[in-house]
Amino acid sequence: MYRLYYNPGAASLAVHWMLIEIGAPFELALLDFEAKAHKAPDYLELNPGGLVPTLIVDGAPVTECAALLMLLAERHAAAGFDVPPGHPDRAAYLRAMLYLANTLMPAFRAWFYPDEPAGAANADAVRAAARARIEAVFDRLDQDLAGPYLLGERVTAADFLATMLIRWSRNMPRPAAEWPRLAAYLGRMRARPALIEVHAREGLTDWIGG
Amino acid sequence: MYRLYYNPGAASLAVHWMLIEIGAPFELALLDFEAKAHKAPDYLELNPGGLVPTLIVDGAPVTECAALLMLLAERHAAAGFDVPPGHPDRAAYLRAMLYLANTLMPAFRAWFYPDEPAGAANADAVRAAARARIEAVFDRLDQDLAGPYLLGERVTAADFLATMLIRWSRNMPRPAAEWPRLAAYLGRMRARPALIEVHAREGLTDWIGG
Repeated sequence: MYRLYYNPGAASLAVHWMLIEIGAPFELALLDFEAKAHKAPDYLELNPGGLVPTLIVDGAPVTECAALLMLLAERHAAAGFDVPPGHPDRAAYLRAMLYLANTLMPAFRAWFYPDEPAGAANADAVRAAARARIEAVFDRLDQDLAGPYLLGERVTAADFLATMLIRWSRNMPRPAAEWPRLAAYLGRMRARPALIEVHAREGLTDWIGG
Repeated sequence: MYRLYYNPGAASLAVHWMLIEIGAPFELALLDFEAKAHKAPDYLELNPGGLVPTLIVDGAPVTECAALLMLLAERHAAAGFDVPPGHPDRAAYLRAMLYLANTLMPAFRAWFYPDEPAGAANADAVRAAARARIEAVFDRLDQDLAGPYLLGERVTAADFLATMLIRWSRNMPRPAAEWPRLAAYLGRMRARPALIEVHAREGLTDWIGG
């Protein structure tokens, strides 16, 4: 039994979504961000960064969204989302996970928390730079799309991460759906019943379902 | 035969170091950053971000330092740096790689390229925030060190990434060696002949050897 600490629509969404797709038993623990539950001492014991997601795996807390997606994909290989060691796409898979995690995700962090990189007085400049970085990643994702899905013919853990991050652009001046190939890609991903289901379970009413 | 595109002391160092440790045949391609060789069209074909490292693996370019370390560790498992799927430390390994890659590495990017997050006018504020983030990671690494090495009793790919990143703090106001457990850890890592060798091969004369 997994236990997922989450907040609706946050970086826990991709893990929640994959848990539904793989059919693993799990329970949810909602963290109320407005009540600062993610900064409370008992949660910081599990996740010293005070972030989501945290997943309890075999009784121990594991953090980092991209790491959890890779871990779940390989622990539940029958679901078909892993690209295991030795697979011809293995290098592309690892590269995609790391690129999304250390380029696109930090740019969104800056977009949503623009006070962090340079103080509140410089939030506008931070947002402008973050927007440019996010759009540059969308240029590249649009160009690099290897097939109907990120790495080619089938859905992998990288698609869960990419779709979750892309979703965060939905209210930006130029959301990812304005890139033609990304729009078609999103159409495929957003048709997945488990993505619709996770939106319903997290009470999210925009972008999908609702 | 691998081919590594590198610049001395940059994010290619950990990959160069691991290639020496695993004893794999490789050749080097030096990118002159001052001549903007990493922004030249032929290099951007291999690495659209214009960054190092790029490693040619089976004839195709692979990017992202942390991804390459994981890939090399698993392709050369006999060297003992991998923590393979199913291993009891697998979750901790994936978490460590992703945490270093998406928290510490971007903070160093902001430290060394402080114009990027908010424009040249706000570089001082960016550096101050980056320094605080880097030191917070050092607090946590110092506290979380699981044994003589990052994950416990043996060196893994995560130690290559951590040591390379920690090295980047050597001229900061508070380098990582000021944290007592990190200092002992660095003492162990810096005694490794291949780390001394990679410094010599890249012409680096501070921090080690020299």
